[in-house]
Amino acid sequence: MKPLAILGSTGSIGVTTLDLVARFPERFSIVALAAGKRVERLAEQMERFRPRLVAVADEDARSQLIRLVPHFKGEILWGESGLCCVATVSEAKLVVSALVGALGLLPTLRAIESGKDVALANKEVLVVAGELVTRAARRAGVNLFPVDSEHNAIFQALRGHRLDEVRRLILTASGGPFLRRPRSEMAQVTRDDALRHPTWKMGDKITIDSATLMNKGLEVIEARWLFDLPADQIDVVIHPQSIVHSMVEYVDGSVIAQMGIPDMTIPISYILAYPERLPISHLPSLDLPRAANLEFYEPDEERFPCLRLAYRALRAGGTATAVLNGANEVLVAAFLRGQIHFTDIPAGIGAVLDAHQIQGSADLDTLIEADRWARTVTEQYIEEGERPRRLVVSSKGETC
Amino acid sequence: MKPLAILGSTGSIGVTTLDLVARFPERFSIVALAAGKRVERLAEQMERFRPRLVAVADEDARSQLIRLVPHFKGEILWGESGLCCVATVSEAKLVVSALVGALGLLPTLRAIESGKDVALANKEVLVVAGELVTRAARRAGVNLFPVDSEHNAIFQALRGHRLDEVRRLILTASGGPFLRRPRSEMAQVTRDDALRHPTWKMGDKITIDSATLMNKGLEVIEARWLFDLPADQIDVVIHPQSIVHSMVEYVDGSVIAQMGIPDMTIPISYILAYPERLPISHLPSLDLPRAANLEFYEPDEERFPCLRLAYRALRAGGTATAVLNGANEVLVAAFLRGQIHFTDIPAGIGAVLDAHQIQGSADLDTLIEADRWARTVTEQYIEEGERPRRLVVSSKGETC
Repeated sequence: MKPLAILGSTGSIGVTTLDLVARFPERFSIVALAAGKRVERLAEQMERFRPRLVAVADEDARSQLIRLVPHFKGEILWGESGLCCVATVSEAKLVVSALVGALGLLPTLRAIESGKDVALANKEVLVVAGELVTRAARRAGVNLFPVDSEHNAIFQALRGHRLDEVRRLILTASGGPFLRRPRSEMAQVTRDDALRHPTWKMGDKITIDSATLMNKGLEVIEARWLFDLPADQIDVVIHPQSIVHSMVEYVDGSVIAQMGIPDMTIPISYILAYPERLPISHLPSLDLPRAANLEFYEPDEERFPCLRLAYRALRAGGTATAVLNGANEVLVAAFLRGQIHFTDIPAGIGAVLDAHQIQGSADLDTLIEADRWARTVTEQYIEEGERPRRLVVSSKGETC
Repeated sequence: MKPLAILGSTGSIGVTTLDLVARFPERFSIVALAAGKRVERLAEQMERFRPRLVAVADEDARSQLIRLVPHFKGEILWGESGLCCVATVSEAKLVVSALVGALGLLPTLRAIESGKDVALANKEVLVVAGELVTRAARRAGVNLFPVDSEHNAIFQALRGHRLDEVRRLILTASGGPFLRRPRSEMAQVTRDDALRHPTWKMGDKITIDSATLMNKGLEVIEARWLFDLPADQIDVVIHPQSIVHSMVEYVDGSVIAQMGIPDMTIPISYILAYPERLPISHLPSLDLPRAANLEFYEPDEERFPCLRLAYRALRAGGTATAVLNGANEVLVAAFLRGQIHFTDIPAGIGAVLDAHQIQGSADLDTLIEADRWARTVTEQYIEEGERPRRLVVSSKGETC
């Protein structure tokens, strides 16, 4: 029996995780759940899985929740301290880190420091603080298990192998809805166009990131930290069918790929049961003869400059990827509000990176400060249409 | 330094193996070589790799060889006993079993019994005597490493995993030159048509086997013994590009595939260095964006009945697969001589299997006798156009 704590239990990853817990009650139990403001869904989860501790976004959500589950005997906490209590709850063996955004960084770090293995679904944790978080995991002797389908595929393709025999990691990208859109039309794409993802059903932010390829750029950064390989050994290939979830090429020329239907149940189940595999019988098998032909293309960095920007920030190191991520979040939100064009997203990120003076090997406070700085100057950039002025985060920094 | 003995050093697998030995002289040495009648090539190999023991087909080949390498200080043997001496030479840690046909069976068994790991490239060893050979390997505590690209791919895709978590093995088949040929035209295909394999360059016999899909049928039989899984868990899928070399589907729905350019250097190197991987820098990497789209089809057992015949023989067990193989060899040779039609190959095999009374858990003599019987009645079938009469190999047998 593996006791779990879930950060983000009412989101897509959290719900799929709980579905697996319900299907394999002899293998998993729920100790603690943290959600934001979806208290009705959380209340249902509490009835069903009986955690002894839950956390919500704020005091207001806490009051609503108490009204929904008046007979709940456990603790109900709120805010960042609530998240950190869920992340470090003593009985949990594995913490599923599935919050969205930089909010998940501190509780994930606390889970690691308290000796928990972490199932990582929150991109920002490694994009903002990959060096810090992986160092903490090494020091604590805990595992960071990748839940994302691409990194999970690489994790599976590395199984039983040595990292020093890897020639390169090959992350696949669906290419999003604008794979074949000419460059000249990219500025005119609408919010609705961009939200029509061809293969995966996901939230709005990540769907826009898929359309700009920034999602893949962020995954390259995550891969660098998860698998401890430099940017030069991480490639991206466009694969519109999303059947090959990613690949590892070894020094002998062999390529090991993990494939499957596009359903997050499979990677989540792999991590929950690792090193075992759960018999998943409620999903169809991958039927290659019935699937479309598998296509692979080089990504076009002219039409999708976000990918190049992500590599640039990764190579620059330190605070640069936190700035990349903060600027991207603000610009995507502005695009979703109809405030800017699709092509303003990479343009804005580039301008903010230009203005940023990075600091290497940054601590948590510096990273959070860099994230805040990036958000502020990006907001100004959007409001005023001005290129941000250079801000010196540290005298030791170098230009990104 | 791993000392090797090679059975079949002048064939395609043997030559590629020696090329790798030459490229990695600090890792491998050659103790013994066995070849057939290509004595010039063997003489060159002796000059270069300095084995202390060699074997050739017969006394005549031995005399020729002595004339070519008059100063050779080691032993030169011939015939079956020569092969067995090469297979059991004391210093060798790994024996590469790459003879063609049933000839390789006894020396491979001797290598196993003398405690050597075996790199198996000789199909007939497991097709004729899979149960016997794998039992001997278990008893001796040695490894049977698959060299064939498909089985090698499965071996790689199983790495780090548990066999009881496998849902099925998926062997890929190029489909050969007649993948899209209508059934009505199959009887008229010529020898030259059949020898035009779309992706792999191989010998005549195996190229015809690829065209009939018998090659894949024989590989299903090999897979059953190599990986100790029943026929029901071994599927075949047509994949004309020969880039995905084979796959393993696990109980959670994950499919792990091994891919690569179609070059036997990669699987051979994997086995020679196992569990390490050799840095192979003289071959191009797999370039998926430049490769054709990957297609997958169900095999059409109506047009390619050999595949069904192989499953039938595998399910029947005992001597049936030896008979299947013997009949197929004789029929393919007759087709190559222009004596029979392409469609007579499966028809003949079916007739011989119909006439065969199998014996389960057969010993080596019984298997060799079944092989001889199959060849004799198949020759008669070809000469006289008569359906073979039933021959009782053993009173304990059941109809195949």
